[in-house]
Amino acid sequence: MLPRGRRRALGAATLLLLVVVVVGFFLFGRDPEYGLQAAATLDGDPYGSRNRSTSNLQPLLPPKCELLHVAIVCAGHNSSREVITLVKSVLFYRKNPLHLHLVTDAVARSILETHFRTWMVPAVAIRFYDAEELKPLISWIPNKHYSGLYGLMKLVLPSILPLSLARVVVLDTDVTFSSDIAELWALFAHFSDKQVIGLVENQSDWYLGNLWKNHKPWPALGRGFNTGVILLRLDRLRQSGWEQMWKLMAKRELLTLQATSLADQEHPELVHPLPCVWNVQLSDHTLAERCYLEAADLKVIHWNSPKKLRVKNKHAEFFRNLHLTFLGYDGKLLRRELFGCPSQLPPEAEQLQQAMAQLDEAEPCFEFRQQQLTVHRVHITFLPHRPPPPRPHDVTLVAQLSMDRLQMLEALCRHWPGPMSLALYLTDAEAQQFLHFVGTSPVLSARKDVAYHVVYREGPLYPVNQLRNVALAQALTSYVFLSDIDFLPAYSLYDYLRASIEQLELSSLKQKVALVVPAFETLHYRFSFPNSKAELLTLLDAGSLHTFRYHEWPQGHAPTDYARWREAQAPYRVQWAADYEPYVVVPRDCPRYDPRFVGFGWNKVAHIIELDAQEYELLVLPEAFSIHLPHAPSLDISRFRSSPTYRDCLQAFKEEFHQGLSRRYGAAALKYLTALQPSQSRA
Amino acid sequence: MLPRGRRRALGAATLLLLVVVVVGFFLFGRDPEYGLQAAATLDGDPYGSRNRSTSNLQPLLPPKCELLHVAIVCAGHNSSREVITLVKSVLFYRKNPLHLHLVTDAVARSILETHFRTWMVPAVAIRFYDAEELKPLISWIPNKHYSGLYGLMKLVLPSILPLSLARVVVLDTDVTFSSDIAELWALFAHFSDKQVIGLVENQSDWYLGNLWKNHKPWPALGRGFNTGVILLRLDRLRQSGWEQMWKLMAKRELLTLQATSLADQEHPELVHPLPCVWNVQLSDHTLAERCYLEAADLKVIHWNSPKKLRVKNKHAEFFRNLHLTFLGYDGKLLRRELFGCPSQLPPEAEQLQQAMAQLDEAEPCFEFRQQQLTVHRVHITFLPHRPPPPRPHDVTLVAQLSMDRLQMLEALCRHWPGPMSLALYLTDAEAQQFLHFVGTSPVLSARKDVAYHVVYREGPLYPVNQLRNVALAQALTSYVFLSDIDFLPAYSLYDYLRASIEQLELSSLKQKVALVVPAFETLHYRFSFPNSKAELLTLLDAGSLHTFRYHEWPQGHAPTDYARWREAQAPYRVQWAADYEPYVVVPRDCPRYDPRFVGFGWNKVAHIIELDAQEYELLVLPEAFSIHLPHAPSLDISRFRSSPTYRDCLQAFKEEFHQGLSRRYGAAALKYLTALQPSQSRA
Repeated sequence: MLPRGRRRALGAATLLLLVVVVVGFFLFGRDPEYGLQAAATLDGDPYGSRNRSTSNLQPLLPPKCELLHVAIVCAGHNSSREVITLVKSVLFYRKNPLHLHLVTDAVARSILETHFRTWMVPAVAIRFYDAEELKPLISWIPNKHYSGLYGLMKLVLPSILPLSLARVVVLDTDVTFSSDIAELWALFAHFSDKQVIGLVENQSDWYLGNLWKNHKPWPALGRGFNTGVILLRLDRLRQSGWEQMWKLMAKRELLTLQATSLADQEHPELVHPLPCVWNVQLSDHTLAERCYLEAADLKVIHWNSPKKLRVKNKHAEFFRNLHLTFLGYDGKLLRRELFGCPSQLPPEAEQLQQAMAQLDEAEPCFEFRQQQLTVHRVHITFLPHRPPPPRPHDVTLVAQLSMDRLQMLEALCRHWPGPMSLALYLTDAEAQQFLHFVGTSPVLSARKDVAYHVVYREGPLYPVNQLRNVALAQALTSYVFLSDIDFLPAYSLYDYLRASIEQLELSSLKQKVALVVPAFETLHYRFSFPNSKAELLTLLDAGSLHTFRYHEWPQGHAPTDYARWREAQAPYRVQWAADYEPYVVVPRDCPRYDPRFVGFGWNKVAHIIELDAQEYELLVLPEAFSIHLPHAPSLDISRFRSSPTYRDCLQAFKEEFHQGLSRRYGAAALKYLTALQPSQSRA
Repeated sequence: MLPRGRRRALGAATLLLLVVVVVGFFLFGRDPEYGLQAAATLDGDPYGSRNRSTSNLQPLLPPKCELLHVAIVCAGHNSSREVITLVKSVLFYRKNPLHLHLVTDAVARSILETHFRTWMVPAVAIRFYDAEELKPLISWIPNKHYSGLYGLMKLVLPSILPLSLARVVVLDTDVTFSSDIAELWALFAHFSDKQVIGLVENQSDWYLGNLWKNHKPWPALGRGFNTGVILLRLDRLRQSGWEQMWKLMAKRELLTLQATSLADQEHPELVHPLPCVWNVQLSDHTLAERCYLEAADLKVIHWNSPKKLRVKNKHAEFFRNLHLTFLGYDGKLLRRELFGCPSQLPPEAEQLQQAMAQLDEAEPCFEFRQQQLTVHRVHITFLPHRPPPPRPHDVTLVAQLSMDRLQMLEALCRHWPGPMSLALYLTDAEAQQFLHFVGTSPVLSARKDVAYHVVYREGPLYPVNQLRNVALAQALTSYVFLSDIDFLPAYSLYDYLRASIEQLELSSLKQKVALVVPAFETLHYRFSFPNSKAELLTLLDAGSLHTFRYHEWPQGHAPTDYARWREAQAPYRVQWAADYEPYVVVPRDCPRYDPRFVGFGWNKVAHIIELDAQEYELLVLPEAFSIHLPHAPSLDISRFRSSPTYRDCLQAFKEEFHQGLSRRYGAAALKYLTALQPSQSRA
C-alpha cells in the first residue's frame, strides 16, 4: 500500500490528467491545428539558475503593488498549522499584495479566520470558501485510490473562485517558500496561448533532466507531474466551458480507462512545465537532488513525504533548516507594510495603529498602555481537539499559562478528567517546543478534550486577562471553571461540579449564580494531595496546608468564610467584599475579564466586581476545593514588588476601571468605589 | 555636538575623501586625460528595482561556488554581538562560499573565534587580523572629530589584507542584509577601469535623487558618501602605491584644509556610486524613504543612528522587524551546505558529522548519544565584562542556567559580590530577552564582574556538563566555586573563601585541595536567609532548613558529615564515598566535567570521582554554607522519573565512565567500580 501522501498525490495527478483531457477536448476538439502544437518547452534555463543576465527570457516580475492570488485547500487542525507556516514563508519574501483564497472545512475556517484577523498583516486579503460546497463536485469520483476528498479539491477550484479571477497560484499546505512568490507568478508570462496549467514534474524514478535537454515528447501526465504547486489560468479554463463539461468527460473516461492507460494523454499543449526548483520534492530525494545540485536557488520545497520532517536523506538537514526557519519565525515580524503601495490595512488595524500612535511615550504607564492595546496573534485549537458532546451541566476548566508552567499540564490532566480550554502565551518557537512536549507525553496525547489556544507573545507584560478571555471564548460547555494553572483541583471536583449544577438546577434559576471553589495552598514543593475534604482538613490542621494567600493577602479569599466551609454540608451564600477574588464556576456567557489589567495585580478582583455588579449570587460549594502549588515568584510579581511605577500604574488602572463601573452601573457601583478608598497596596 | 554614530561616519567619510584624493594623485597625476574623465554614473536603474528584464545592465551574479570576501572591523563586546547578527543575515541569503576577514581587538577576537569555531557553518572561512597593528597607521590622524580609531580602520584595510585579495566588501557591524551578498559583489562588474571604491551616498539633506536623473558633477565627497557598505578594488589601490603614499598626502592635506574645503574634491572618477538600496540609512529617514519608496527591494539596512532600534520614524517598524528577524534567528539553522560546491567543512566539523552519522537511531540511548556529540554554538562574554584584577586568592562563582532561572540572578548578585562566570543555555531569541532582562535590572546592570556566556540550545536534553565546562573555562581567577544556580551562598561566603584560601596557603600546598561548601535546602518558597552559621543551625533545628536532599538522596552529601560540621571550628578532611557530590572550591585548572552526562543524573558525582582519582583532598570549611531554594521539578527530572529508558541509559553511561576511569587510573579506579556495584537507582 502506498503511503498516505503518495496516494493523495497520485489521485490528484490522475484527476489532473482528466481535467487536461477534457479541457483539451473543448479547446482543441474543433481546431484544425489540434495535435500539431509542439510540446511545451521551457524558455531559458530550466533550473531557474541565477545567471539572469545570460537569459533574455527571464520573465518580467509583476509590477510593484500588483495583487497576486493564491489558493489553498485546508481541512482540520494539523493542516491549519501547516498553512500558517507556508504563509509565513510566503510573506517573508513577498513584496506584492496578496489575496489568499482559502477553501476550508469548518475547523480550519474557524482557526484561520481568527488567526488572520488577529495577525493583521498589511496587504493580505483573505477570502474563505466552504469546502462542503465543493464536495458534490468530486464525491462521485471512485476514490478507492484517494485518501480523501480534500486533496482533489484544488483541481475543481475554478468552479468557486470569483469569475473576475484570471490567474491563481494553487499551493499544497506542505510547501515552504524560499523565494519571492512574485517570481513564480511571473512564470505565467511563459505560458503559450493555449497553456492553462503550470506544473513541475514528479521528481520520481525516470525522465527528469532528459526532458530539458532533448525535448522529447511529453511524458505520461499521470505519473509525470506533481500538484503541490500549480499555476492556473482560470480565464482559459472557464472559456473552455470546463466547469460544466469536465465531470461528464471524466466520468466517461473513468469508466473505460485504467490509470496506466490514462497516461497516454492527448493534450500536452495545455501544460506549461515549470522549472523543478519551484517544487523540490522530498519524497524521492535522488532525483530532487539532481534538481538542486544544478541550481543555486531552491524556490519552493515540498514536504510530500509521509515522514515529513523526519525524512532520511543526506541533504534533508538543509531542507529541514529552511522549514524550521518558518516554523519558529516570529509571525508578528511579518506585520510590515509594502512601501509605496496604497492602503493595506484592514480598518481595525488602522484604528489600532492610530491609537498606538496617540500614546505618549513619556507617560509613566506607557508600557502598560501599549500592552493593553496590543492585539496578539491567536491560533485557537492548535492541536487536534474533539469538542465535548453537548451535555447541559458540563464544565470546562479555563486557565492560561506560559512555557514555564508546561510541567503542570500532566498533573492537571490527572486531576481534571473533563474538558479544558487553555490559553498558552508562547513565541512561535515555543509553540513548536510545546508540540514536541505534548507529542512525547502519553498523558497529554491521549486527551483530545483539552483545547490549547496559542496566543503569541508580544510586549514585556503578561496579558493575563486577554489570555483568560481567549480561553473563555473557546469553552464549549454551558459552564466554565475559571481557574489558574498553578492550582490542582480536587480529584472529584469535575464530577462534583456537574452534579452540583444539576442539583441546584442552575440552568433554570432566574438568579445568576457563581459557584465558589475554595482555594488552598501548600508551601511545600513535595506534597501529597488530599483525596477528600476530611484529608484536606487534617492537613490544614497540621499546618501542611493553608487557605490561599493567608499570609500575604487574606482579603483575597476571606469572604469565602473558611470557618463556615469546614462545617458546611450545603452550599451557602457569601457577600462580595473589597479585593475578593475567588475561583468560580459560572455560565459560559459570563462577563469577560478586563484586558486593562496586564502583568500582576487586580486582574481577578476586577472580574469578581463585574460579576457582583451584574448581580451574580456567590455560592460556596461545601465539598469543592482546589490547591495552589508553590513556584518561584513570576517575573511580573518581582517587578511589581520592586517598581513604584508598576504600583502607581496599577492604581491608575483601578481608578479608570471604577470610572467605567460608575458609567455602566451608576449609583450601584458606589459600593466598589467606597471599598477602594483606604487603598491597600498589594504586595 | 553630533551624536556618536554621526561623528564616526563623518570622520570616516572625511578620511575616505583623503584616500580618494591621494589615490587619484597617483593614478591620474601624470595622466594627460586627468580631469577629463566623466563623472561616474550609474548603469541602469539606480534603485536596483526589480524589473530586471528591462535592464540589460543587471550584472552577472558571481559563478556558483565563487568565494566572496568580506571584511569587518570589530572591537568590544557589543560590536561582537552586532557582527553575529550581521553575519546571520548574510548567511541566510548567501549562496556562495564566504571568506570573512575580521579586524578585531583582543576582546572581539576571543568572542568571535569561539563563536565561529563552535558555529561550524559550512563554506565560511575566517581570518583574524589584529587591530593593534592598524593603530599606528591611523593614530596620527588628529581625531578630535572621531569617536575612536576603529571607525577609521576599515579605510586602511588594504595594508593588512592578503596581497592575493583583489576585491573585498567592507561592512560596518550595524548593517543587516535582506538579500544575497552576491548581488552586491556583482556590482564590482560595474566599475569602470579607473574606479577603486564603491559607495552609497549619505541619505542626508541634499542631492539624493538629483544625481541619478541629471548626472550633475559629483557632489562633495566629504558629505556625499556613507561608509557602512564599501566595495574595494584592493588590486587597484595597491597598484597606485597607495599604502606608502596616502599617509604623506593626507598629512599635508590635513595641515592646510578644513573639512569644508576638503569637499572640493578632485577625483570623482575613483568612486563608483552604488544604488541606494545597498545602504539604506536610518539616521535621516526623510531621504532614505525616497530610496525605498521607489525601490521594491531593500538590500542592506544600516542602523547608523545612535538610537539604533529605538529610532523614531514612521517606517522604523519595517526595518526593526527585518533586524529583529536576525537577532532572534536560530543560528544553527545556518549550518547548511551549499549544494554542488566542493568540501566546505572544517576538519572537526567533518569528524563530528561522521560520528553523528555512525550513531544508530534504533539504539535506545540514541537521543542521549546525539546530545553528547552536539557541539553547541557558544558566545562567550555576551555582555560587557570587566575581568577581575589579578588577585592570588580570588574565587569565581561558576554556574549554569536556562531561561526559567533568570529570576535567580539578582538574588545571586546580592549574595555573591565577587566575580561570576555563568553559562546560559538559550535560544537566539531568548538571548535577546536576556539582554532586555539585564538592561532593565539595576542590580545586574551594575555588575561588570559577572561574565555571561551564552550556549545556544540544540537538542532535547539539557547539556549540563558542557555548560559547566564553558563557564569553568571562562573563569579568570585562580579559584572557582563550582555551584548551581538554585543555591544562594551565605552572604559572607565570598570573603570567607578568599580568607580561607589565603590562610590555608592553598596555592603553596603540594597536595591538591577541594574545599567543600556544605549544602542545605529549604522546602519553603518564602524564606528568610540566615545571616550566620548560628542562625542557620537554629533554622535547621526548627525544621525550616534541611541538609541538602536529606529526604531523597542523603548519600549525595552524607560524607560532608553535617554533625561534625555543626561543631567544627577548623577545616576538616573527609573521604570520598559512593555518590558524593558536594559543592567545592578548586583551582581553575581542575578537571573538566564529563560531557557524557546530559539531562538529569550523576553529572556532579562523576566530577567528584575524577577529583578524588586525581587525589584532590576534600576539606570541609566550618563557616561555609549555601542554601538551595525550592523550585518546580525540571522537565529533565520529571522525564527521568517517568522513563525507564532514561534510567537505563544513565546506567549505561555510568558504566562507560567507569571503563574510562579504569583505563586512566588502573587499579586505583577499582574502588569506584566496587562502590557502584549495588547500583542504586536514583529518583
